[in-house]
Amino acid sequence: MDQNDFSLPRVVIRCKAAVAWEPNKPLVIEEIEVAPPQSNEVRIKIVTTALCRTDLYFLSESTTKYTFPMVLGHEAAGIVESVGPGVTEFKPGDKVIPVFLPQCRECRFCKSPKTNLCERSPVSRLTCRGKKLLQFANTSTFSEYTVVNQIAVAKIDPEAPLDKVCLIGCGVCSGYGAALNNARVEPGSSCAVFGLGAVGLAAVMGCKAAGAKTIIAVDTNPDKFHKARVLGATDFVNPNDHDKPISQVLSDMTNGGVDYSIECVGNVEVMRSALESCVKGWGVSVIVGYTDMHDFAARPIQLLSGRTWKGSKLGGFKSKDGVPEMVKAYMAKKLNLEEFITHKMTLNQVNDAIELMEQGIGIRTVLSVSPQQ
Amino acid sequence: MDQNDFSLPRVVIRCKAAVAWEPNKPLVIEEIEVAPPQSNEVRIKIVTTALCRTDLYFLSESTTKYTFPMVLGHEAAGIVESVGPGVTEFKPGDKVIPVFLPQCRECRFCKSPKTNLCERSPVSRLTCRGKKLLQFANTSTFSEYTVVNQIAVAKIDPEAPLDKVCLIGCGVCSGYGAALNNARVEPGSSCAVFGLGAVGLAAVMGCKAAGAKTIIAVDTNPDKFHKARVLGATDFVNPNDHDKPISQVLSDMTNGGVDYSIECVGNVEVMRSALESCVKGWGVSVIVGYTDMHDFAARPIQLLSGRTWKGSKLGGFKSKDGVPEMVKAYMAKKLNLEEFITHKMTLNQVNDAIELMEQGIGIRTVLSVSPQQ
Repeated sequence: MDQNDFSLPRVVIRCKAAVAWEPNKPLVIEEIEVAPPQSNEVRIKIVTTALCRTDLYFLSESTTKYTFPMVLGHEAAGIVESVGPGVTEFKPGDKVIPVFLPQCRECRFCKSPKTNLCERSPVSRLTCRGKKLLQFANTSTFSEYTVVNQIAVAKIDPEAPLDKVCLIGCGVCSGYGAALNNARVEPGSSCAVFGLGAVGLAAVMGCKAAGAKTIIAVDTNPDKFHKARVLGATDFVNPNDHDKPISQVLSDMTNGGVDYSIECVGNVEVMRSALESCVKGWGVSVIVGYTDMHDFAARPIQLLSGRTWKGSKLGGFKSKDGVPEMVKAYMAKKLNLEEFITHKMTLNQVNDAIELMEQGIGIRTVLSVSPQQ
Repeated sequence: MDQNDFSLPRVVIRCKAAVAWEPNKPLVIEEIEVAPPQSNEVRIKIVTTALCRTDLYFLSESTTKYTFPMVLGHEAAGIVESVGPGVTEFKPGDKVIPVFLPQCRECRFCKSPKTNLCERSPVSRLTCRGKKLLQFANTSTFSEYTVVNQIAVAKIDPEAPLDKVCLIGCGVCSGYGAALNNARVEPGSSCAVFGLGAVGLAAVMGCKAAGAKTIIAVDTNPDKFHKARVLGATDFVNPNDHDKPISQVLSDMTNGGVDYSIECVGNVEVMRSALESCVKGWGVSVIVGYTDMHDFAARPIQLLSGRTWKGSKLGGFKSKDGVPEMVKAYMAKKLNLEEFITHKMTLNQVNDAIELMEQGIGIRTVLSVSPQQ
């Protein structure tokens, strides 16, 4: 089949994007160039994108691995604009979610049921003022258009509302799957979720879906507790309300510690607390929050006495398989996304969205990028 | 049934033991008093005991949790001398292995298939010169007699040679089970074992029994490599032979890292190396070595990219169930114990055995304590 049958003309698109020129500075709305999709690539019109804390992390905290200038954004949904040679799975008009984690279906990781990693790596087709823009997280969704290899694009239900299901591209999968796929929460168990941003709230929802009996939501911001309750939390702990270490507070509440704990902050001290909050013998602690600035640590006895320490990326979902399934679950009303969306803005207001997140206000701001048609 | 039917007279036994009066000093052979077994307790004549590195650790390195004076020794085999009220499982003459980890069969840990921990705690029935002696690790086998609660005594095959199967009481179970029960090594997989003392060599044997294809033995002492090969190791790495980090060496040897790594040293830097030597996606690293002096640590990405960090005590065997099974495996020639025993001495020579271990000479010294009859 000739891909030109259903491709638009293979031209460079000039469009609007929020460019991060340097660390710790506001993003700048610029006109950028988006190259035509090359072999096995898909050019996507981004309809909506949300802001995730990881975007901020790479803008303001860690500048070790990623280089500027770049286009941030990786939690989005859009519509295929054109496809490159060799693409048969997608055609213009398909609704899609680009994913930061590819699934090539061919490497040893993709072939293993034990992991959702993939060995393949990303490309960049974005430039601005003659400079190559780094495509953050393989996606760069703070742009009206982006180009992604088809191994990192998930085709979703054409009826899905893109301004909701964009959250499935990162935060909601990451938390929900951490409970179900990585911790493997069992019915009747006790869980603690540390950090009640979108990922933590999704983890609460995942614990609930797995049938946990006790779900303790932990955050220093009591404003987050209401939503946690709506999504399934049974108890709330604000570490600032206690003189004792939080692990002792949770141990006292649960006869020796929770069966599962999930860290959704990205702070190595919280990672330690989450591990220490687990019951010995079989407690499992899953790290979801990201940081590469510090080591996490604990005393060996914590593991020797039977705890397990794991980590999670995209909630353990193989991306192209899992994301459409999660969209299906939302369409079947088995997943609550509305509760996560506290603010709606446009891409032009991305710096306002960043400020809200830095102040800990709300959960997710969804940015309208392009009209659907 | 009246326990007096098969008990010897309930008298205090005065016998020989090696007493640790203070940290970092040679043990002193003393006459001690061993009280009669009380309710649910068993008094055991220790026939042979081996010296394990953990004994040295609590004599010389960590003095935080254990208090002097105490009687060390926890890897032993013996014969029941008398039993206290309520004991129906044992009678005088039974061959037994006392275990540092009880199995009461009644607590929530014993009832869970997920762990071999037990919530019950030990007693002490030993005194010397009017002072209570701490019963180290619930056992205190550097003594002609000791008293242990029946929940921490495993009855074994009456034909078993006690001077061999004593090793099953700690080291051999700890390494062998770490591979089989904790790491759950799969056939065809690649493994690395860090540290080739008795526990590490038993881990090599466990990896082999599990069907691992590649078993890389890692130690800075090349004298240990011969035994590792006999027990199943396919490759050897001496970190001192390389300029690169050991995790990089193993990664280069195994296309990205081993499937399983087992730390049998008790050094937090080695724990880190063992984790970093695992392949991303599904690598599992198990800590077996003990230390409570430092934190272990790593960068979060190590877990976020799919590795799992676990720990192991007594190789995950529920003690009263597992120890007799391991003795059975030895009697059926499925387990090699002979290779571990490099020196034979008497209890009087315990300080010589300690010196051998401190110098890294040999693997296990088995001490003859009492005659079998």
